[in-house]
Amino acid sequence: MRIAQVAPLAESVPPMLYGGTERVVSWLTEELVTQGHQVTLFASGDSETSAILAPSVPQGLRLAGVRDHTASLLVMLNDVLHREDEFDVIHFHVDLLQFPLFQDLFHKCITTLHGRLDLSDFHPIFKAFPDMPLVSISDAQRLPLPHQVNWMATISHGFPPNLHPLNSPGGEYLAFLGRIAPEKRPDRAIEIAKRAGIPLKIAAKIDPSDQDYFKHVIEPLLDHPLIEFIGEIADAEKSIFLGNALALLFPIDWPEPFGLVMIEAMSTGTPVIAWRIGSVPEVIDEGVTGFIVDSIEAAVNAVRTVRNLNRLAVRQRFEARFTSTKMAKSYLEVYERLLSGRKPSQTRQNTARSDAHVA
Amino acid sequence: MRIAQVAPLAESVPPMLYGGTERVVSWLTEELVTQGHQVTLFASGDSETSAILAPSVPQGLRLAGVRDHTASLLVMLNDVLHREDEFDVIHFHVDLLQFPLFQDLFHKCITTLHGRLDLSDFHPIFKAFPDMPLVSISDAQRLPLPHQVNWMATISHGFPPNLHPLNSPGGEYLAFLGRIAPEKRPDRAIEIAKRAGIPLKIAAKIDPSDQDYFKHVIEPLLDHPLIEFIGEIADAEKSIFLGNALALLFPIDWPEPFGLVMIEAMSTGTPVIAWRIGSVPEVIDEGVTGFIVDSIEAAVNAVRTVRNLNRLAVRQRFEARFTSTKMAKSYLEVYERLLSGRKPSQTRQNTARSDAHVA
Repeated sequence: MRIAQVAPLAESVPPMLYGGTERVVSWLTEELVTQGHQVTLFASGDSETSAILAPSVPQGLRLAGVRDHTASLLVMLNDVLHREDEFDVIHFHVDLLQFPLFQDLFHKCITTLHGRLDLSDFHPIFKAFPDMPLVSISDAQRLPLPHQVNWMATISHGFPPNLHPLNSPGGEYLAFLGRIAPEKRPDRAIEIAKRAGIPLKIAAKIDPSDQDYFKHVIEPLLDHPLIEFIGEIADAEKSIFLGNALALLFPIDWPEPFGLVMIEAMSTGTPVIAWRIGSVPEVIDEGVTGFIVDSIEAAVNAVRTVRNLNRLAVRQRFEARFTSTKMAKSYLEVYERLLSGRKPSQTRQNTARSDAHVA
Repeated sequence: MRIAQVAPLAESVPPMLYGGTERVVSWLTEELVTQGHQVTLFASGDSETSAILAPSVPQGLRLAGVRDHTASLLVMLNDVLHREDEFDVIHFHVDLLQFPLFQDLFHKCITTLHGRLDLSDFHPIFKAFPDMPLVSISDAQRLPLPHQVNWMATISHGFPPNLHPLNSPGGEYLAFLGRIAPEKRPDRAIEIAKRAGIPLKIAAKIDPSDQDYFKHVIEPLLDHPLIEFIGEIADAEKSIFLGNALALLFPIDWPEPFGLVMIEAMSTGTPVIAWRIGSVPEVIDEGVTGFIVDSIEAAVNAVRTVRNLNRLAVRQRFEARFTSTKMAKSYLEVYERLLSGRKPSQTRQNTARSDAHVA
């Protein structure tokens, strides 16, 4: 199949540092190439790919100091538009600029929504273009959209199984990995660790906008023998940090559409203790890959029983549900359904669970 | 002529409070209707116009609390696109989203650029679409654009002559009207007034982002018998505030593409003392409607001679160059040139001066 992957331009594909979307686009692109498809990747010129790279700008825009990405994105989308007959399917990973521009080509277009949909500023575009084929990254992500749209599937993120290998013994500390931000609730992680009497290691970056929160809310909590703040860690250090943990704490307080770090932990065999919000109940298999909780008390109880979970079983569930091979297979199924003109499926595409439902 | 005017959605047309662009769109639209044209105004639903209103959103987006205007603008532009055969000319006052969407209709499109062009984030769109017919609001506005584009004309803003009537006696204070912001240089205005020994009245709003600047830089300068800070004034109070002044001080420190307040002062007969930057040398006729200066000292000297200027002559020059009738006439000439397929003119469209040039 001749496939165009259209990435955001904020970061290169894969990103130099952060950039969840660009990372997922890279994993999908590489897997589609491996499976023998002819893939063209529209992305910044410093991207690295085994697909054909169509560079739009020399460098990822954030590190290039470009604040308003609109002009660069419009130029890239216009390039895609003028080359549309080279592709069987055009797969967008950008938010909304493509909707009016590609309205006559929806029969071969698909947009994966990578962001939250509970901010109403974007809703008018979904109302105006209800036929754009869409993929959600969790079923929960869809809930805030008040309009009928053309959902084709929910497809979980996935990455190569060798990226974060199984670490079968595990370890004796709790891990928190991400950003220091109010909605990530590192304060909850600290309280859980203190109450459970288990060490907590916090590997997290602090964005400039979150400095105040760190200084006034989190820093005063760090002065405790069980709590260790190790700052930001590189991508390459994640496997060891996560793999050596007893469990990952994911006590978020916002409807995160997909929490990549949960499946990164699972990949190393480390189970996840997470709050019941956003994508969490879809990602964690209760009692197998972790525990879903609603309170500090429940989280502390989960910490006490989490060592009973079988780390090999955690890893196996990761392999069954969240590899890039599985993600690419799900997307190919959607591409084929799109091209055959069939109606959107009413079942989720990427899980073997029986509780599948779509909006 | 059947004309579509496409306004930004940030404010209603005309705006409830601020909104230079929406004010200009309103003046142009009303004048075109007066001249017998069939005008459709694409704008927020709380706009008031004698044209046919095509409401895109119920209310101006800023006051409605919408932060990201992209989705609403795209939906409006798509509406315009689907109705394009109802219009002879489509006149955009929005930044850049229309470029790819209307690329097959450039023969009947015109975009007035209302903002500064020295920020390079937008440049890729001008490079990719060099054929979009463009109007600048001053020649100086064009200078930062590194690419060849399709300039049709420079057209000054204009408003109805009865909006700010002539106040022939004038007054004995200097006026500063605008925002308290570093690039507006109220500190220069204060120093000029103190050195000249003439009272200064400062009528200005303070945006939240400029509170620090006000508190630390400007407020300490206000404690002086000649300086009076009167805060923000309503649009209806402008005529009296400007008309009762000896001169308007416009000591800006950034390349403002068009300073509306300069022609508001001229309309009341009040001359302008302004720094040589941006549109200033194109708007002020040296020795007739004011003085163009490069230093505090030159400004102080200008204050001492400004009362020799004839206020009736200032008003007459305003009437000759900056009315909405004149602005609409200039735009109609551009519309007609566009429709007849003629090449862009090499002369400015809106001034009788002989130093006309275009990029």
